[in-house]
Amino acid sequence: MRAIVFEGGRAAVRDVRRPALREGFTLVRVLLSGICNTDLELKRGYHGFSGIPGHEFVGVVEGPASSPLLGHRVVGEINLACRRCAWCAKGLGRHCPKRTVLGIRGHAGAHAEYLTLPEANLIAVPDGVSDEEAVFVEPLAAACEILDQVTVAPGARAAVLGPGKLGRLAAAVLATAGVDVVLLGRASRGKAGSFDLVVEATGSPAGMARALALVRPRGTIVWKSTHAAPARFDAAPLVVNEITVVGSRCGRFEPALELLKNRRIDVRPLVSGIFPLGDAVRALREAGRPGVLKILLRP
Amino acid sequence: MRAIVFEGGRAAVRDVRRPALREGFTLVRVLLSGICNTDLELKRGYHGFSGIPGHEFVGVVEGPASSPLLGHRVVGEINLACRRCAWCAKGLGRHCPKRTVLGIRGHAGAHAEYLTLPEANLIAVPDGVSDEEAVFVEPLAAACEILDQVTVAPGARAAVLGPGKLGRLAAAVLATAGVDVVLLGRASRGKAGSFDLVVEATGSPAGMARALALVRPRGTIVWKSTHAAPARFDAAPLVVNEITVVGSRCGRFEPALELLKNRRIDVRPLVSGIFPLGDAVRALREAGRPGVLKILLRP
Repeated sequence: MRAIVFEGGRAAVRDVRRPALREGFTLVRVLLSGICNTDLELKRGYHGFSGIPGHEFVGVVEGPASSPLLGHRVVGEINLACRRCAWCAKGLGRHCPKRTVLGIRGHAGAHAEYLTLPEANLIAVPDGVSDEEAVFVEPLAAACEILDQVTVAPGARAAVLGPGKLGRLAAAVLATAGVDVVLLGRASRGKAGSFDLVVEATGSPAGMARALALVRPRGTIVWKSTHAAPARFDAAPLVVNEITVVGSRCGRFEPALELLKNRRIDVRPLVSGIFPLGDAVRALREAGRPGVLKILLRP
Repeated sequence: MRAIVFEGGRAAVRDVRRPALREGFTLVRVLLSGICNTDLELKRGYHGFSGIPGHEFVGVVEGPASSPLLGHRVVGEINLACRRCAWCAKGLGRHCPKRTVLGIRGHAGAHAEYLTLPEANLIAVPDGVSDEEAVFVEPLAAACEILDQVTVAPGARAAVLGPGKLGRLAAAVLATAGVDVVLLGRASRGKAGSFDLVVEATGSPAGMARALALVRPRGTIVWKSTHAAPARFDAAPLVVNEITVVGSRCGRFEPALELLKNRRIDVRPLVSGIFPLGDAVRALREAGRPGVLKILLRP
């Protein structure tokens, strides 16, 4: 099959062996995959990654023949938990210390014609949700995670820093909860110390200092950005103003699928382009350009 | 009166004018004051400070004659709130944006023969609590603040980083709540990812990286250190492991006084020396030496 392969800081489309189907796993033919900023970071060497990237996808189950999901469109939880440790027992497989992660750590990813995932990781996509929408479930779940972690009162004032894909999804999710939310780019000004909640989704090591300037005393910052460069900021305001900073990563897929199914969030304006998988190198370059939002790949 | 004065990175004991007694304020004769690491930071230029430092004290009320606390021993809340803004209305005067702070911002401090504070800031010290104990109420309240901010289950595992004064007080306070707590110095090892709660009280910009290594996924870090140098750390574990970081500063005096009155915490072993105020320059040097805990000044 064809797949993107990252190695030594370079990306190429190659013919590779289709992943073998192990016991408990399901073979998924990828319909669309989405390029995430994490993919671009992985290409640059974050996590010392090499292999097939990609963790946002919608696909069709093609095996095993016994699978109850056979022939169905699915999306899939990207963390492959061990299902035996204390974390998994608590239902927190997304933090299982032995986990592998689709296209990120120890498990071949979705920028390919096929992928495998444990059947337990898959969720069927309702008919009313298109492929172009379903491929957003993973990043939308990451945005929904904010509401799982932080209590926000309707009418609370929130600022989302970073008008990229994740920032826009986070702002849209907060709006569904009745939060008074503004999306701030690098040039837009927000009143210092005035926000109950600030979501840091700039993808830049400089984002935290700005978040600390905008949040009110005793307010909350949700930290979404991961980047290879270390963060560097004056921590005194964090301590003096008793700010709570909540690291936030993946989320549950169910609330994200619900938002799409009930048409409470429209993700389609976020698609900046759909490229054939064979043009992936160009697609990755396009995804890294300023102002470009989601780039999708069609195998 | 005599007082320590910080100016241009230097400390000196000088004869200065006794602070004037404004309406609503109380004149306190200082019995003992405590040197805090913040004082040493202020001397080095943190906050662009100049003036009389000192915010830990026990004293006797000497005026006005109408004060119900006249002649009583008192300790005092160090934040002078405006008492009119939305923060003050919510009982969060410690975060009042117009506040001045005893010996830190805009209000002459406690390393002096006399200080003034609004009468509402003062609390009488019970007879069973000695001067040497009462002078610890402010830093002990800062340690108690952890229990006001974070829910800790009895039996939870906590590590306190930084075996200085604040670290020891934090460990003692957590122990009173039934937490299984270890105090870790620079050389002591803790098992990575094993602590529900980590208190960062190293006073060093490097402390945060270590706290992130020790805390379990979805665990909590209480950030106590303030320092002039910016913090610099790889923030990816904070996001990936969905850590909550809680900035923590001053606390309510009442629970701290209770702990002392009921003899649940013994602060006396933390006293490394008591110096006359006239020897303050030497006392400040002593307070900055590694391994030295609390240095007290007697006017």
